[in-house]
Amino acid sequence: MADDVIRIDRALLQSLMDDVSRFGDTGDGGVDRPALSDNHKAARDWFSGQLRNRGYTVLIDNIGNIFGRLDLAGPDAPVVMVGSHLDSQPKGGRFDGAYGVMVALAAIETWRREAGERGIVPACNVVIVDWMNEEGARFQPSLLGSSVYAGALSRDFALSRADRDGRTVETELLRTGYMGTDGPPRPCCFLEVHIEGDSALEKAGKTIAPFVRHWGATKIRIEVTGQQNHTGPTPMEDRHDAVLGAAFIITKVRELADAATDTLYTSVARVDVSPNSPNIVPGRAVLFAELRAPEPEMLDWAESELTTAIPELAAKASVQAEIAAIERRPAGRFDHRLVALAEQAADRFGYPRMQLDTIAGHDAVAVNACLPAIVIAVPSVNGVIHRCDEYTSPEDLAAGGDVLLEMMRRIDEAGGSLDTSGGQE
Amino acid sequence: MADDVIRIDRALLQSLMDDVSRFGDTGDGGVDRPALSDNHKAARDWFSGQLRNRGYTVLIDNIGNIFGRLDLAGPDAPVVMVGSHLDSQPKGGRFDGAYGVMVALAAIETWRREAGERGIVPACNVVIVDWMNEEGARFQPSLLGSSVYAGALSRDFALSRADRDGRTVETELLRTGYMGTDGPPRPCCFLEVHIEGDSALEKAGKTIAPFVRHWGATKIRIEVTGQQNHTGPTPMEDRHDAVLGAAFIITKVRELADAATDTLYTSVARVDVSPNSPNIVPGRAVLFAELRAPEPEMLDWAESELTTAIPELAAKASVQAEIAAIERRPAGRFDHRLVALAEQAADRFGYPRMQLDTIAGHDAVAVNACLPAIVIAVPSVNGVIHRCDEYTSPEDLAAGGDVLLEMMRRIDEAGGSLDTSGGQE
Repeated sequence: MADDVIRIDRALLQSLMDDVSRFGDTGDGGVDRPALSDNHKAARDWFSGQLRNRGYTVLIDNIGNIFGRLDLAGPDAPVVMVGSHLDSQPKGGRFDGAYGVMVALAAIETWRREAGERGIVPACNVVIVDWMNEEGARFQPSLLGSSVYAGALSRDFALSRADRDGRTVETELLRTGYMGTDGPPRPCCFLEVHIEGDSALEKAGKTIAPFVRHWGATKIRIEVTGQQNHTGPTPMEDRHDAVLGAAFIITKVRELADAATDTLYTSVARVDVSPNSPNIVPGRAVLFAELRAPEPEMLDWAESELTTAIPELAAKASVQAEIAAIERRPAGRFDHRLVALAEQAADRFGYPRMQLDTIAGHDAVAVNACLPAIVIAVPSVNGVIHRCDEYTSPEDLAAGGDVLLEMMRRIDEAGGSLDTSGGQE
Repeated sequence: MADDVIRIDRALLQSLMDDVSRFGDTGDGGVDRPALSDNHKAARDWFSGQLRNRGYTVLIDNIGNIFGRLDLAGPDAPVVMVGSHLDSQPKGGRFDGAYGVMVALAAIETWRREAGERGIVPACNVVIVDWMNEEGARFQPSLLGSSVYAGALSRDFALSRADRDGRTVETELLRTGYMGTDGPPRPCCFLEVHIEGDSALEKAGKTIAPFVRHWGATKIRIEVTGQQNHTGPTPMEDRHDAVLGAAFIITKVRELADAATDTLYTSVARVDVSPNSPNIVPGRAVLFAELRAPEPEMLDWAESELTTAIPELAAKASVQAEIAAIERRPAGRFDHRLVALAEQAADRFGYPRMQLDTIAGHDAVAVNACLPAIVIAVPSVNGVIHRCDEYTSPEDLAAGGDVLLEMMRRIDEAGGSLDTSGGQE
């Protein structure tokens, strides 16, 4: 029944979004809050304060993830986890990540109040999470805190990651006060609401999209080694031009996408040439290539083709080339029960919905490896993300909150089970 | 007669080379002394101090060339100019340019002393020169100071050249204290000794080579413009990847050399990608291409082929590309009298000699447009130049000095005429 629905507290959500957007405000609508920067620390200090003031138990684990636990049911009750991340790209947008944390807090607070007013006795406890370094802009790789949580990366590796000034995650966690010792919660599921970051929802005129598949990504650093020489006197047959070898490899990476029998996105987006002087045959070029696909088989094929081609292309340019580093984020599917639950929740409010894949990484992708997880997307105006003009309307922000709250409520009614019937309607 | 020859002061030459190599010493045998950098300024300050301490009149012209004038004859006597350049490539070698200046100073000092001891009354005055920005590594184009001196480039153009941080030659001349007001000397000829930078002398077992022809060079800056986007969600067919267009153009530039019916050297040695982030489809790439050939017709053909190909290659990558700047250094010949004089001088000491072309630019190439000039080459071990392991043996360094001094002496004996008989023997 329509009067039975609980809608998220829109004023609270708006107020939280306004508050969090102050940290690293760039004055043009965006924020600058790279992981463990001063701006990020300020946002996390404010967020932890909000949790404590509202009676949450704040836990910091040993990779700097912040968890706020609120016991609405007994100490042994199932736990539902919601949240996202407060770090941003350098000069990024204010919705990416921060919205997912604020909408989670507003959803819990609304649920807590409405449950009390309606005499509902919750069956589950809740945890809100702010994952450490989702963006991977300052420290690579991305999804660092959630990947350590999920066991996909070791803590030692994560702590050793350094920014371009040589400062490590370890020293910056200590400096900002977020090197904790608390054991992280182990909930029954993780729900993340996020802006889409592309224009599929907008183009289709839809409001809500559970992500069904997360694309895999293989990130490859290729080092091409030639021989530094003057571009004048060195005879062509004596040249070992690293940039020529790089050009052959860049072309090949694109050809893989063109030749693929299923969906495959490829790029070489960063090229570091050394010494990069107009009249010195380049002795070295480093290429940062990416392969992305929804199906693991396609990624494997592309990686194998490229690995085979690299030495041949290098030989064609009389240089050497090798894969110096490779990072594989596997393709996969989110929990089908959570997809169904998100669709039922959207239908409950009459929000137009569709299914989407996510190509970009999200914390829920990492967490999905160890427990049922999902991302629910809301529209991005013009598909913009990672820029100051990233924008989602207040109505769509609230719609994401309504769906999140409804999902939490249904899981609670099922006693922490994800096999809900959707039979409320 | 053997006891009549004057050999360059080997100890002085070695000591000067040791001294100048301290400025920008990279610790691996090389130097890092790009034009108007702090290291370059330090070397020039030291060099000017050497000149002043030895009684030379130091003149700085309005494009930062340093001239040290030593009046050995009357004020209206002909002037012989010798020298090279003190700037280096980033992480370049310590012989390129610096040797030409140090050997010139050692030759003048030896000549001055020996003339005095032997009671010779010189007929010519001498000028030693350090040309500003020969390398063109920090500020393009190369040969900047000597080209302004020769009238091939305007001073305003040269002053406006900017490095990649936007600092101009004008501000850097003012900052380093080398924006002068002195009128430059107008000598009867310019003699430059330089390391070969290739392995022709070494392979032939020769010690001395006057350069006879200088190759032409066409330097082209190509700007490729795409559209910046996330490498994740952007569908392949919507990408406008500037690096892909750049790869096609780099490949084409090489193909020109392979397809040429006569000698043609080509390169793309500098590639500036923007924003150059691993997960952003590059919106822009700037390529610095060079075409070099001994014959003007071949250069014209290559430029025409490339100009036609660029828009087609760009379209293939769904980007735009255009030639943003083009600089043509014509092919030409050095003064045949100076070639003969160099050969006579080498024969006087019994140094094995050969004739070579120079493909690389040298200040003497620029100066050759306004007065008789020549470059005399000495061997480069393994043909290496622009690298820390650039090397020429002390014996070969001294041989170049002997030849230079002998040429100066013969021109002096001819009263500043280049039509010497070589009849001393």
